[in-house]
Amino acid sequence: MAASRTPLIALLTDFGTADWYAACMKGVILRTRPQTHLVDITHEIPPQDVAAGAFTLAAAAPWFPAQTVFACVVDPGVGTERPLLAAEADGQRFVAPDNGLLSLVLERAKRRALVKLTNPRCWLPAVSHTFHGRDIIAPVAAELAQGRPLRQFGIPVRRYRTLAIPPLKRLGRTLTGCVLHLDAFGNLITNLPAGLLALPSRWEVRYQQRRVRVVSSYEEGRPNELLAIAGSLGYVELAVRNGSAAARCRAKRYDPVRLCDTSRPATAGSS
Amino acid sequence: MAASRTPLIALLTDFGTADWYAACMKGVILRTRPQTHLVDITHEIPPQDVAAGAFTLAAAAPWFPAQTVFACVVDPGVGTERPLLAAEADGQRFVAPDNGLLSLVLERAKRRALVKLTNPRCWLPAVSHTFHGRDIIAPVAAELAQGRPLRQFGIPVRRYRTLAIPPLKRLGRTLTGCVLHLDAFGNLITNLPAGLLALPSRWEVRYQQRRVRVVSSYEEGRPNELLAIAGSLGYVELAVRNGSAAARCRAKRYDPVRLCDTSRPATAGSS
Amino acid sequence: MAASRTPLIALLTDFGTADWYAACMKGVILRTRPQTHLVDITHEIPPQDVAAGAFTLAAAAPWFPAQTVFACVVDPGVGTERPLLAAEADGQRFVAPDNGLLSLVLERAKRRALVKLTNPRCWLPAVSHTFHGRDIIAPVAAELAQGRPLRQFGIPVRRYRTLAIPPLKRLGRTLTGCVLHLDAFGNLITNLPAGLLALPSRWEVRYQQRRVRVVSSYEEGRPNELLAIAGSLGYVELAVRNGSAAARCRAKRYDPVRLCDTSRPATAGSS
Repeated sequence: MAASRTPLIALLTDFGTADWYAACMKGVILRTRPQTHLVDITHEIPPQDVAAGAFTLAAAAPWFPAQTVFACVVDPGVGTERPLLAAEADGQRFVAPDNGLLSLVLERAKRRALVKLTNPRCWLPAVSHTFHGRDIIAPVAAELAQGRPLRQFGIPVRRYRTLAIPPLKRLGRTLTGCVLHLDAFGNLITNLPAGLLALPSRWEVRYQQRRVRVVSSYEEGRPNELLAIAGSLGYVELAVRNGSAAARCRAKRYDPVRLCDTSRPATAGSS
Repeated sequence: MAASRTPLIALLTDFGTADWYAACMKGVILRTRPQTHLVDITHEIPPQDVAAGAFTLAAAAPWFPAQTVFACVVDPGVGTERPLLAAEADGQRFVAPDNGLLSLVLERAKRRALVKLTNPRCWLPAVSHTFHGRDIIAPVAAELAQGRPLRQFGIPVRRYRTLAIPPLKRLGRTLTGCVLHLDAFGNLITNLPAGLLALPSRWEVRYQQRRVRVVSSYEEGRPNELLAIAGSLGYVELAVRNGSAAARCRAKRYDPVRLCDTSRPATAGSS
Repeated sequence: MAASRTPLIALLTDFGTADWYAACMKGVILRTRPQTHLVDITHEIPPQDVAAGAFTLAAAAPWFPAQTVFACVVDPGVGTERPLLAAEADGQRFVAPDNGLLSLVLERAKRRALVKLTNPRCWLPAVSHTFHGRDIIAPVAAELAQGRPLRQFGIPVRRYRTLAIPPLKRLGRTLTGCVLHLDAFGNLITNLPAGLLALPSRWEVRYQQRRVRVVSSYEEGRPNELLAIAGSLGYVELAVRNGSAAARCRAKRYDPVRLCDTSRPATAGSS
């Protein structure tokens, strides 16, 4: 992997943007490798919410160029023995604590490689107890973006921490998924494939004991009506036009959402 | 128009920065044209508030370089038949839905050209129903920033959607304008020319039946006093020192603001 | 000082990111010098809070490359006669109002030089009363980042405004410092050297009449327990795991924090 163009690092943290934390990571990257392009994914992951970070990273990464390096910090275990990882997945690279933050991008990758960061050669000389984003992740990301082999940064590993996400389940005529993420607009993003909503659809969407009307644009929604729509990430989303589905339904992550097959059974029946 | 320097794209959306939406637009731009500089105007336009987006864009654009491309998404009609526009105005370029978002920059332009986006060649292969910012506006902006002619992107049009802003009115000795925008500090930005406040001024400022004192710096204000000042956009602004004029006055967009001519009539009188 | 690489400007303001103010500064910089890299430190300094701005700047600056220019605007006195400064401190450069905003970076600098901005040659042609960030600081920063000598921008001065920070005091076996800053997580950052907490430590931390337990990672904390930890800026910090020490303790800037020497006196005693 040669660095044939400007190295690009995308940052995702729970640091917020009111303090100097995200800026310090950028300063360290630019001190290490001045010709690096920096893009913020977000710094507003809810503090310590690894699952929200993992989802947001997985939602953003596919739209970025090959060879992008993602520097990711949602790290409640900073200062403990939890490892830090560098990973390669389908041509992009990632640096993050091993706490599930990378699990969604790694799970779907066709090719992946991981190392546990053990080589302090490019870390800052003094590593603090509370800010590995600045002291380890930033300088490692800066060097990874140069195209250096993963192996230079640590020991290959095969396992990584995953999140306990309820899997899709098919039972009779019902496909049960769940709310994977609540975005800042209050949209509920599920793990049910959006393709099933293509009209004419034989699937009915059900959430919280109610049937949810399927639309193809938000504007079709009536005031405060819960809608189902084929979302831009390829999954069924529940939404309220000009409003928050999350607030309207007091939705929680991992709430079940069901698709019910309404086609007539192919077999003959007496009814 | 040749791309003689690094292409620059400025982004303005109502996506917020907590989610991946703005980042996805940046990823798509950089995947399309890696050597593009990106600057955020803001992603905090209040959701679906086209008028606030139009004002913010018009406030920022003149300070950016010629040839800057502005990628703008405040798009309550996404997924419906509303058109998307690419425009050229006084040497800068714009991509946005045709819902009034571009109206203020287009109205004041000395030269302008518009096309309705109809050529899907540079769009993403799959266009979603809910995220044209990523699927159409971002890749079109990336190519526009290369200096390609507007005509390559669609069909020339002459009309565009405008906003219903009350015009300035002169009646006798009174010039009536309105609050065009409330900024995040709570300043009220009007459409009355700031030049009229130049001292000694014969104009008295009136808002909500009260006379408003004219100052030349915020520090002249007394606690909680409503002030009028020549604003940095060239218009009269109403402000409270270290406070919010919007909150103090429960101000609303399009509230009338008056300038009253206090000079003696030039004609002879009996009084 | 030659501009041997891409000029880098870091911005710190209290403008927020909802409006066009920060973007206008960037537009002006890029219009002046298109090949400039821009990094946001933050635009969320609490409005007019010079002390918070000074702390945040001092926390971020050391992690940025030499030759970085910091364009800083927390400027309650805009429009009055307060001077604007350009400064050089240990190889980095700063532009800001002379109101204490630069005092922390200047105080610790081994080498420093200052000028009062008096040369309007590179300012915008029309300088507003309310937005010197755009009209003066941005274009001066753009030129400073080219490596032009400080003297071209104004008159050398030696004095600058400082902040009234209570100094560290040693009395008997007690070292008294204070809370210098409350970050957005609610951590309390003091001016007491973190090195004193290195284990085994003879120092006990006291805040608000209570002893505070020293830990080496947040995860050691019990729910809602106030902790002391060696912070990433090199100072003692008080924190609550997954919570806000600021809210828990109703902490205020400049609250006293004490380190008490618990080692046995070296002199013989009767007890």
